[in-house]
Amino acid sequence: MAVGDVTMPHMHVVNGVKIGSTEAYVRYPNRRDLVVFKFVEGSHVAGVFTQSAFAAAPVLVSKKHLAESAIRYLIINTGNANAATGQTGVINAQKTCTKLAELAGVESSQVLPFSTGVIGEQLPIERLLDGIQPALQDLKDDAWTEAAFGIMTTDTTPKGASEQFELDGVVYTMTGISKGAGMIRPNMATMLSFVATDAPISQSLVQTLLKTTVEQSFNRITIDGDTSTNDSCIFVATGQAGGVEISSEQDPRYSKILEILQRIMNRLAQLIVRDGEGATKFITVAVEGGENTQECCDVAYSIAHSPLIKTAVFASDPNWGRIVMAIGKAGVPQLDVSKVQVWLDDVQICRDGGAAADYTEEQGARVMAQAEMTIRVDLGRGTAKDTVYTCDLSYDYVKINADYRS
Amino acid sequence: MAVGDVTMPHMHVVNGVKIGSTEAYVRYPNRRDLVVFKFVEGSHVAGVFTQSAFAAAPVLVSKKHLAESAIRYLIINTGNANAATGQTGVINAQKTCTKLAELAGVESSQVLPFSTGVIGEQLPIERLLDGIQPALQDLKDDAWTEAAFGIMTTDTTPKGASEQFELDGVVYTMTGISKGAGMIRPNMATMLSFVATDAPISQSLVQTLLKTTVEQSFNRITIDGDTSTNDSCIFVATGQAGGVEISSEQDPRYSKILEILQRIMNRLAQLIVRDGEGATKFITVAVEGGENTQECCDVAYSIAHSPLIKTAVFASDPNWGRIVMAIGKAGVPQLDVSKVQVWLDDVQICRDGGAAADYTEEQGARVMAQAEMTIRVDLGRGTAKDTVYTCDLSYDYVKINADYRS
Repeated sequence: MAVGDVTMPHMHVVNGVKIGSTEAYVRYPNRRDLVVFKFVEGSHVAGVFTQSAFAAAPVLVSKKHLAESAIRYLIINTGNANAATGQTGVINAQKTCTKLAELAGVESSQVLPFSTGVIGEQLPIERLLDGIQPALQDLKDDAWTEAAFGIMTTDTTPKGASEQFELDGVVYTMTGISKGAGMIRPNMATMLSFVATDAPISQSLVQTLLKTTVEQSFNRITIDGDTSTNDSCIFVATGQAGGVEISSEQDPRYSKILEILQRIMNRLAQLIVRDGEGATKFITVAVEGGENTQECCDVAYSIAHSPLIKTAVFASDPNWGRIVMAIGKAGVPQLDVSKVQVWLDDVQICRDGGAAADYTEEQGARVMAQAEMTIRVDLGRGTAKDTVYTCDLSYDYVKINADYRS
Repeated sequence: MAVGDVTMPHMHVVNGVKIGSTEAYVRYPNRRDLVVFKFVEGSHVAGVFTQSAFAAAPVLVSKKHLAESAIRYLIINTGNANAATGQTGVINAQKTCTKLAELAGVESSQVLPFSTGVIGEQLPIERLLDGIQPALQDLKDDAWTEAAFGIMTTDTTPKGASEQFELDGVVYTMTGISKGAGMIRPNMATMLSFVATDAPISQSLVQTLLKTTVEQSFNRITIDGDTSTNDSCIFVATGQAGGVEISSEQDPRYSKILEILQRIMNRLAQLIVRDGEGATKFITVAVEGGENTQECCDVAYSIAHSPLIKTAVFASDPNWGRIVMAIGKAGVPQLDVSKVQVWLDDVQICRDGGAAADYTEEQGARVMAQAEMTIRVDLGRGTAKDTVYTCDLSYDYVKINADYRS
């Protein structure tokens, strides 16, 4: 069960984007597991990918194609990650692109492949290839929700965000989906996320917008500290809603687009945490008073990755000593603990490095019992701050990951 | 239930060391929770301690006393860590030393205090002080096993190692105990460990021996990646069995002592993993073929800390893609994955970065079903190697840490 409100919003159609899907039987029969995106000619596409040394075959192929060509199609399968599959895996990813390109009348390098699922097994390539034609035949404008279902693995809910906004009298749309529930501590992007707008944005700014917003969204969430081999995030601007192309950060419309994309990225990233494997609590870890952003992130991730804190939150136990432990091990140089403050929401539990005199267990337990809470730390040594989002560690995390695949 | 053979051996008496204990009611009534060690005058004592910025009050006091004085007593309580307790915590640790010193007729700075248990609460100082006299009255030679019980927290078994050995015709003894079961990813030492020998070793070499052996033992284990505020490891040489003092690493007896101490340290460290909270499997992670030791350790810890691998091992699921994932995210620069090999014991699961052609799930499942296994990785880029020890992540880890304290 996901934490908090994870309802799919109304998913506005993005002009210039069509989506089709089918049941290709990649891993399980009778489930929608192959999704194709088609972008109108002239669309600008940007991508960021996992930094894992074991980047999956589709990641390698996608990076190459993005650098070479104007992208027109995405093809995404769930059920098999095509990772740690060697040269055969790369050939299979390329075959997928070639088959789709032939059927659609574009170049193979104009197609980006994506896979998610089990690592270390070869794709059932014939079944995958057979699924491309039906997916293409299914292409339509209004299929974002279907696509959100079609890319799920251990996700319990589809994940989407969508907004409409006006710039200089023109109404634009921005819509996106994401998936991911485990192996989540992205380093550049989450498992898979696709966001599109019909606003006119230059190729260069599409890339800038994506990198800027991913850093504060998908690069600030963690479920289990494990970085996937397949993390990919794609942002596309079709320009189909009209208007003059935005090609400078000085364009007043740029800051508005940035704000909306950031909000959509944050929502898509946080939905992944809310649907974290076995999650029963959504935890915001906000660290302030650092000398620089890096040490704020180090402390935030030290807390967000601590199994002892995550199990205590699961049990609604305000065992704040564990928070102090995680701050202590984060490697902040010359940290003066007598200046450290810690709050659970509005309840100060640690003042000047020791227990807050007016703190009572009842206050802490009240916050810990909530489905959503903020662990706030002030390091008392500067003005930098940063925030990371995570979930608790429950019996079900163990159950899901002990059972998955078996 | 601890994994494998964790039987307490015969704990040989160490000449020059006396041990007493009592029930001081630090946290729970009717349990032995206060232990005192007495070392004969002239003993050489060395210590290594947590590198946590939130080092506990007894750690701060112990480091100060070790630098100032010839240590004669240790006093150890379980049930309360006296960590994140501010100036009051330091004063309480000092009071404990002063009371013991008064009763024993030594200087306060000749006493080292140690605490383990819940973080963030003040010691019940009056009950602790009241327990010192009974503990001193209990001092005797043959009480190592009692002491091993007396320092336990969530440990399910006492942990000890003991050997006798002969150097130049003199029989010497080395005996030690340790405790710890969670919050275990020591950085300098484990939760608590105390080792003593009656061999004559100079103060300088006692420190060298301790640092050298801790690096390869307590600094190579992890249960949950969490570093305690109270990690402390003490090594003492009383010299009471006679013989000429060993004062040079060139002394042929030095290498023998080093070998035995390393073996005892390894055993005490690995016993902690075998008794890891909720552990059902003991996992050796051996990484070879690295350019340097650091990258071997980075890969080994990336595997050893991965909740996805630890849950897969718990489930006896040879989900080797997760091992590849952990290698990929370890941050090894310019890793050529086509040279990476991975084995589960003698079964090669990954060859040249992809699935080994002759590998079958049955082979992997056979190894995974064992209570003890080795995950071996060859990075294929150098001659460095290193090994880390860990355990699986089970329902019981969550249960223990969700329930502890409540």
